[in-house]
Amino acid sequence: MSRSELSDALFTDLYQLTMAQAYWQNDVIGDATFDLYFRNFPPNRSYYVFAGLEDILNYLEDFSFSDRDLTALESLEIFDPGFVEFLSMLRFTGRVRAMPEGTLLFAEEPVLEVSGPIIECQFAETFIVNQIGLQTMLATKSARIVHAAQGRMLVDFAARRTHGTDSAMKLVRASYMVGFAGTSNVQAAATYGIQAHGTMAHSFVTAFPTELESFRAYGESFPNSSTFLVDTYDTESGVRNAVNVANEMKSRGQMLRAVRLDSGDMLELSTIARGLLDEAGLEDVMVLASGGLDEYSIDELVKAGAPIGGFGIGTRLGSSEDAPSTEFVYKLVSFEGAPVVKLSSKKANLPGAKQVWRESVEGGLMRRDVIALEHEPSPSPTAAPLLRNAMRSGKALAPHPDLGEMRERFQSQFACLPYRYKELEAAPRFDVTTSDALRELTDNTQQQARERTSS
Amino acid sequence: MSRSELSDALFTDLYQLTMAQAYWQNDVIGDATFDLYFRNFPPNRSYYVFAGLEDILNYLEDFSFSDRDLTALESLEIFDPGFVEFLSMLRFTGRVRAMPEGTLLFAEEPVLEVSGPIIECQFAETFIVNQIGLQTMLATKSARIVHAAQGRMLVDFAARRTHGTDSAMKLVRASYMVGFAGTSNVQAAATYGIQAHGTMAHSFVTAFPTELESFRAYGESFPNSSTFLVDTYDTESGVRNAVNVANEMKSRGQMLRAVRLDSGDMLELSTIARGLLDEAGLEDVMVLASGGLDEYSIDELVKAGAPIGGFGIGTRLGSSEDAPSTEFVYKLVSFEGAPVVKLSSKKANLPGAKQVWRESVEGGLMRRDVIALEHEPSPSPTAAPLLRNAMRSGKALAPHPDLGEMRERFQSQFACLPYRYKELEAAPRFDVTTSDALRELTDNTQQQARERTSS
Repeated sequence: MSRSELSDALFTDLYQLTMAQAYWQNDVIGDATFDLYFRNFPPNRSYYVFAGLEDILNYLEDFSFSDRDLTALESLEIFDPGFVEFLSMLRFTGRVRAMPEGTLLFAEEPVLEVSGPIIECQFAETFIVNQIGLQTMLATKSARIVHAAQGRMLVDFAARRTHGTDSAMKLVRASYMVGFAGTSNVQAAATYGIQAHGTMAHSFVTAFPTELESFRAYGESFPNSSTFLVDTYDTESGVRNAVNVANEMKSRGQMLRAVRLDSGDMLELSTIARGLLDEAGLEDVMVLASGGLDEYSIDELVKAGAPIGGFGIGTRLGSSEDAPSTEFVYKLVSFEGAPVVKLSSKKANLPGAKQVWRESVEGGLMRRDVIALEHEPSPSPTAAPLLRNAMRSGKALAPHPDLGEMRERFQSQFACLPYRYKELEAAPRFDVTTSDALRELTDNTQQQARERTSS
Repeated sequence: MSRSELSDALFTDLYQLTMAQAYWQNDVIGDATFDLYFRNFPPNRSYYVFAGLEDILNYLEDFSFSDRDLTALESLEIFDPGFVEFLSMLRFTGRVRAMPEGTLLFAEEPVLEVSGPIIECQFAETFIVNQIGLQTMLATKSARIVHAAQGRMLVDFAARRTHGTDSAMKLVRASYMVGFAGTSNVQAAATYGIQAHGTMAHSFVTAFPTELESFRAYGESFPNSSTFLVDTYDTESGVRNAVNVANEMKSRGQMLRAVRLDSGDMLELSTIARGLLDEAGLEDVMVLASGGLDEYSIDELVKAGAPIGGFGIGTRLGSSEDAPSTEFVYKLVSFEGAPVVKLSSKKANLPGAKQVWRESVEGGLMRRDVIALEHEPSPSPTAAPLLRNAMRSGKALAPHPDLGEMRERFQSQFACLPYRYKELEAAPRFDVTTSDALRELTDNTQQQARERTSS
């Protein structure tokens, strides 16, 4: 069976389905609320950028098992025929509250809350955790690179280095959301309406008798959008060849866009390249750097004053190399109107439906976040609520915001995050506290759970 | 535009298309050969397990641009209409040689070789590097876990932790290829015909008034395939509740399959759980461990004699946490019959079409690999060639082997890899050498390239 014959509803852990059958057989069908949050940042992460909500809302709206899905489930021979019949009619009919995409997010904060009949909410866990984890991880990695680049142009070159095609697509969306200029990934550029960028590969240069001829051929094909790769044989002579062809193009009224460095000492080579270009009156030709870059190396180059106008980022972005996973969990926090916790060591959760309030100081800088119960009043006059209604009765409440709007949200929020929290390493922990009422409910619910176990 | 409206042909870097236009306009249309290989292992990797060939052969057989793809390309306004017309008819008509999936692979060895008209071969780079990199990385991570588990049952629990859905699917295939028993991912299990495994979540336990009632409800629903999660409140009392329900099931002629530990000190808790189960005459009920496991922690538990029958592995497997990327490159090694190299620092390649020979000692243990030119004779009587013809004139030469066959190939090869190369950390480097003829060709081609640059 090919994956495309099965629906996304089947992208789930088997236990979601076995638990559902046990719920169904035991008439456990009350309303539940689940929180999505994470407990700890990985090393060198001091904020997350929330991303992935649009896919979750689409997934929930479209949720239904196809005939193929049901046949696959029957063939496992563990499900009651009546339960399979029940599954055939199952849709998501519940409520979703969430932070908007592009919002800065910290540990312990519920970022997405799903409420409705317990079976409907439970099913969605696998897809939700997968996609929010992935997209938030990639948006965060990208945001760190944007911060390090201090305004220099950034292009995603990671299509070949992401973990598969789904991740490649989501990276393009997430990186654009936080400020990247574009991507080399043509499919993603077309899907999301983002600028596609391209240069040339070493194989192109070596397929011509000389480097000079390869540049000429490319420049003729793309008279105003060429970037020449100059390190195939020797970077300095590569730049000289690029200068020659750029001058030929200039005399025809055309313009070379950039030269690309892909290996060697980037500070030294970019300085040489910039010097040769300027000397030839080619001040508008950009020096673009690529090859093993990430926020740490970009930060060094920028701070050292390397005359690099743009960076193409591949492997370390595509795999979120220094922090390749998140720890998002999706936990039952209330059932049939009563708050719920589990007690296992170090994994206790905050019970009940909640709101996250963001407090600011005068001038707008972020001061701290307060996690409170859903209907508590605002903790202070400067506090703004972060969780918004996104879906009711299984229908999204508004059209999805476009990527440009998310990009602006991220930029305005990031401007309000005090600088020390943006440090690439060893940033302090942003202050997140819980309200008195939530603390009290947590203590009481834990106490009740303890009594229940020991009874 | 939704991604599903675009074909996989468009999953490519823009430069593949711009280079193609420049080739096409300059009549650079000769036959080329590209090698896929990697230069360096990441830390703590001493072998790779090759995976992903089936997807590449399907991709190349199906390669063609759809009308939607072409419309998307036209809207970029950089392509010649004649070139877009050329693209509409483009198919892959070339040759592929490759190692079979499940083969052990080392640095510098060509694992896949694509030959044909240069434009057709160049296009495929992005998809090939993405998929072989991903699938080989996941098969390798899985193989290390299989090695550490020393025969204990392994189940993939990573569907929520992989980088997206594509990676989740490929992980199930790759982990099964190297010896995993199954997966929690229902969609992948159905797609690949692999056993689906399921337990229960903490939310299930907390949705019932007591843990005991939750176990009873689940046991009634799945009388012979239940695994009870015992750490929601307190692990020891959780095991006692599981023992009670298991005895009730036993009296009905049913059997509890396992108890699952998901937090705490696994050595201590598994010993307690095993003791309580054995004491109750439930020797056949397995202790299953999960929660943050990888090859390093499994190795410790196994060496300490923890009475754990199986492991469920999530995050660190799904993200290949300690080595989340590979460095596969796809390099032009010959064009129009002549060998090709590039010279940029530390990135020189081996020119020409090749063969990789694997030499063994008596008894079958692997001794060393020799990278040679394609048509050289075998370097020794024990040597076997690894690269096989997989596709000719754009058509696969044989039906894809099934996963079971790949699994056997991996197991028999892995048995022949001397133990020291399987060490999880600081394993020595397996001996890979190049033939005299290949070394000579490399030197000569580099010399010619140097002369060409300096001219």
